[in-house]
Amino acid sequence: MQERIVVIGANAAGAKAAAKAKRINPSAQVTVVDRGSFISYGACGIPYYISDTVADVKDLMSTPVGVVRDVPFFRKVKGVEVLIRTEAIGVERQKKLVHLVELESGRTFTLPYDTLILATGSSPLVPPLSGLDLSGIVTVKSIEDAQRLKELAQPGKRACVVGGGLIGLETAEAFQMKGMEVTVVEMREQLLPGLFDPEMAYLVEKKLRQSGVEVHTSCSLTGFTGKGSVASVLTSTGEIPTDLVVLSLGVKPNGELAQGAGLETGVKGAIAVDDHMRTSDPDIYACGDCCECTHLVTGKKVYLPLGSTANKQGRVAGINAAGGDARFQGVIGTGIIRVLSINAGRTGLTEAQARAEGYEVATVLSPAPDRAHFFPGAKPIALKLVADRGTGRLLGLQAVGEGAVDKRVDAAATAITFRATAEQISQLDLAYAPPYSAAMDNLIVAADILKNKISGEARGISPMEVKRKLDEGEDFVLLDVRSPAEHAEVAIEGAKLIPLGMLREKLDTLPKDKEIVTFCKISLRGYEAQKILDAAGFPRTSFMDGGILTWPYQLIRPQG
Amino acid sequence: MQERIVVIGANAAGAKAAAKAKRINPSAQVTVVDRGSFISYGACGIPYYISDTVADVKDLMSTPVGVVRDVPFFRKVKGVEVLIRTEAIGVERQKKLVHLVELESGRTFTLPYDTLILATGSSPLVPPLSGLDLSGIVTVKSIEDAQRLKELAQPGKRACVVGGGLIGLETAEAFQMKGMEVTVVEMREQLLPGLFDPEMAYLVEKKLRQSGVEVHTSCSLTGFTGKGSVASVLTSTGEIPTDLVVLSLGVKPNGELAQGAGLETGVKGAIAVDDHMRTSDPDIYACGDCCECTHLVTGKKVYLPLGSTANKQGRVAGINAAGGDARFQGVIGTGIIRVLSINAGRTGLTEAQARAEGYEVATVLSPAPDRAHFFPGAKPIALKLVADRGTGRLLGLQAVGEGAVDKRVDAAATAITFRATAEQISQLDLAYAPPYSAAMDNLIVAADILKNKISGEARGISPMEVKRKLDEGEDFVLLDVRSPAEHAEVAIEGAKLIPLGMLREKLDTLPKDKEIVTFCKISLRGYEAQKILDAAGFPRTSFMDGGILTWPYQLIRPQG
Repeated sequence: MQERIVVIGANAAGAKAAAKAKRINPSAQVTVVDRGSFISYGACGIPYYISDTVADVKDLMSTPVGVVRDVPFFRKVKGVEVLIRTEAIGVERQKKLVHLVELESGRTFTLPYDTLILATGSSPLVPPLSGLDLSGIVTVKSIEDAQRLKELAQPGKRACVVGGGLIGLETAEAFQMKGMEVTVVEMREQLLPGLFDPEMAYLVEKKLRQSGVEVHTSCSLTGFTGKGSVASVLTSTGEIPTDLVVLSLGVKPNGELAQGAGLETGVKGAIAVDDHMRTSDPDIYACGDCCECTHLVTGKKVYLPLGSTANKQGRVAGINAAGGDARFQGVIGTGIIRVLSINAGRTGLTEAQARAEGYEVATVLSPAPDRAHFFPGAKPIALKLVADRGTGRLLGLQAVGEGAVDKRVDAAATAITFRATAEQISQLDLAYAPPYSAAMDNLIVAADILKNKISGEARGISPMEVKRKLDEGEDFVLLDVRSPAEHAEVAIEGAKLIPLGMLREKLDTLPKDKEIVTFCKISLRGYEAQKILDAAGFPRTSFMDGGILTWPYQLIRPQG
Repeated sequence: MQERIVVIGANAAGAKAAAKAKRINPSAQVTVVDRGSFISYGACGIPYYISDTVADVKDLMSTPVGVVRDVPFFRKVKGVEVLIRTEAIGVERQKKLVHLVELESGRTFTLPYDTLILATGSSPLVPPLSGLDLSGIVTVKSIEDAQRLKELAQPGKRACVVGGGLIGLETAEAFQMKGMEVTVVEMREQLLPGLFDPEMAYLVEKKLRQSGVEVHTSCSLTGFTGKGSVASVLTSTGEIPTDLVVLSLGVKPNGELAQGAGLETGVKGAIAVDDHMRTSDPDIYACGDCCECTHLVTGKKVYLPLGSTANKQGRVAGINAAGGDARFQGVIGTGIIRVLSINAGRTGLTEAQARAEGYEVATVLSPAPDRAHFFPGAKPIALKLVADRGTGRLLGLQAVGEGAVDKRVDAAATAITFRATAEQISQLDLAYAPPYSAAMDNLIVAADILKNKISGEARGISPMEVKRKLDEGEDFVLLDVRSPAEHAEVAIEGAKLIPLGMLREKLDTLPKDKEIVTFCKISLRGYEAQKILDAAGFPRTSFMDGGILTWPYQLIRPQG
């Protein structure tokens, strides 16, 4: 008899699983049901549709050659039948039946399956507050959301984005590009919490503020005011008048169907699956935003829904559902965002996450131009590496700046997947020519510093630690070794200037009994200075990680 | 007694080794000698200086903050003494003495060493032809070369670049940007020989031709004509009138000093070293363009001089010379070039190299946009993957196109270093957001196709094989499954058009007894078509790798 494969959900994971299953077993009858009207769309593109970067919403639902992935497309090209506006309301596992309802007519019916694939996706988290029914309060998830936001995003209007994660900031960028007055509200002390350490997130926050976006961190949403349409957002730190509210507080897995069928669920209620994407029922697979996956650094189960992961999982679920044998190993938490000319990418664990996992960490903060410094268009990027001090193994990378961070993230993601050490990364044969990188790529330079730190040759301290010393009035020397011209432009209050080229001559002006912390623009001359001081017998020396470029506090302008 | 470390050569490797040695052992006396006037410069930047992309030659000799790396810089900042215009003419290993000559005065003297580091670099290969003394015949290596080329590169003048490798093509680009009439002469049948397979190199050649550069492949240099200054280049296929000749035929290691001292040499006369960069004399190290290194894919010794490698080797040699313990594992042959808006990068082995090494290979040719296809500015790039068919291990990647090839090269270089398989690469958690890639990154898509090919699910044949079938009049169907609109724009002569969406309905118009080769713009619909034909029982089907986008032959325009 013809094998019947039913897929619930026709977006990234479901569409991929269905097409792959049909390819693997062309004689199977593959049916996909979806409660929405639009299928197989790129939800990640919604902010770019709002900002008019992407002109037509159809572009988000098309193949690279411009064919819309609609019901006839799936039938004719993929040999897969798709039922839209059709919701799965129950799974009867003993009888292997899915109960469905046609949303237009209300008609209920059943579909028998031999193998079922759940790709039910996720839903935006919405807090249980009154006033949510006011118009002008929108989430960023569906094509319908995209169309409403496109209408509401008008120049001169005020927008309040609640939630400073990836989607929140992408949406804030879109509003800013549309000429709106934008406020971002984030409950945690920093933007992009859980994704970046504070000093790296601060580089993004600084850019948002410079571009005129208001940012409120440590600020919780408590309610809304308005009559009919929203007029203001109420928060723990005050009221924010607005014309439009975007709730981007993260998503939760749509696990109700699976739970109703008695399937096991795990982290945050996501469907539990093995490495074949098989649920606790061997005839049911799950993939995409509805299910959990394994973090390859910690070995733990996590809920990290992403379009890229959904596609990979869909492929594996489709192959296995059709009788093949494929595995999905897991993820390492890679993510990237563009906000107002800043690129911010990350992979693996942050310093905070690594410490929480019990690692004794070594870190590096290394800013540098993204290509040969003499090449026009070279732009700075700051890398933060987090490693296990004992083994030197890289645990995570964060990269923020106007230059090309994505390629450093991808190389690091690959290295972390293969459990590479700082030593191995420092020797990678990465592509070098002046338009692409310096002779020593940023990642290699950072890995070299990491090696020096782990060996004890280089002793870096964080800008946060330096700030604490300054604030607490500790008796130490903060030594700026940049040139007088650089110092005249911008400096840290309380620092003493001795340019690196003069340091060997001026050693006797420095006290041997005090701690000395050196710094420069990035950290390289700061490190050189530390080595000169060490060689001259100064007993307590270190350099400040990342230099002026990643100092996340106030700077002064000594002249001018 | 104070340890004496002498370094011969003050460029990339030598400068790095000296600075690192002094940092590791601050009490050592580190002396560097160099026969040139300019030290520590970025030779890789010379083409960009010629084209005025880099305004000042000093930029090539500066640190990222604009400090010129000259003799006082090395003394004051690095604590290293540099003697310029000073040539090493012999090494007396028993007495541990270097014999030197001051080039200005002719004075000879000796320097005693405890540890010697050879960083003598490489020299351009120059063929033994008469007429080399004509003015206007230049190599691309030194700052002096750069200054001569800058003078000679005048708009409207003719330039002939002999050698179609990386430096040759970068220089050709520079001349073209300066408004010169440019001809490139390459002895082999393709540009970038040894670096790219022919169909990938052809994508670069096509761009050069479209931009007005004349390209002569399979064309050998036989001599020059001219009185005083060069007037034409004589080749195996004719005479090329020109005002300027650049010889970019590769480089040879400067191994004379080492050979004279009786040190072992290896590939192409490069100095033999172990993984500590130690030569056959335990007190002498070598690094940079003068020495050989290990290819991590083949395990064989190779001569692949590159600025990025020189820096890594210099670091290792410096550490070990100063009493530390560091290793340099080797290279995988990564290289990249920008030519007239085309980026062309590669790592590992080409298909030809892999076959020559005895591998049974599987290959993929996969063109696609470099970011989400709906994102403005997305540009096509073509990837070629070469894998070991038996294990699925990736052996090499080539990437060519206007989009971001460098990050795919870096991720692949990292993967190859860790001996990743297609399966592992297809699961990499690479950074995804629409400005950076499609949900399935190009590298992941290509790895998926590779898996399908290795499993036999997908059967690709190369464009070269299709061309052979067409030329020999083989009785097969070449099936174009693109849309009528795409077909009207550009097509392959002799192909039959059935758009993919119609294929399931029109199966009876195709002969079951003939071989059918499908294709589309890139290869994805071509592959889908192959699967549809397979499912319908067609016995001999395949798709053409890379589709129209990487077809390296003539295309026709059916309408218009």
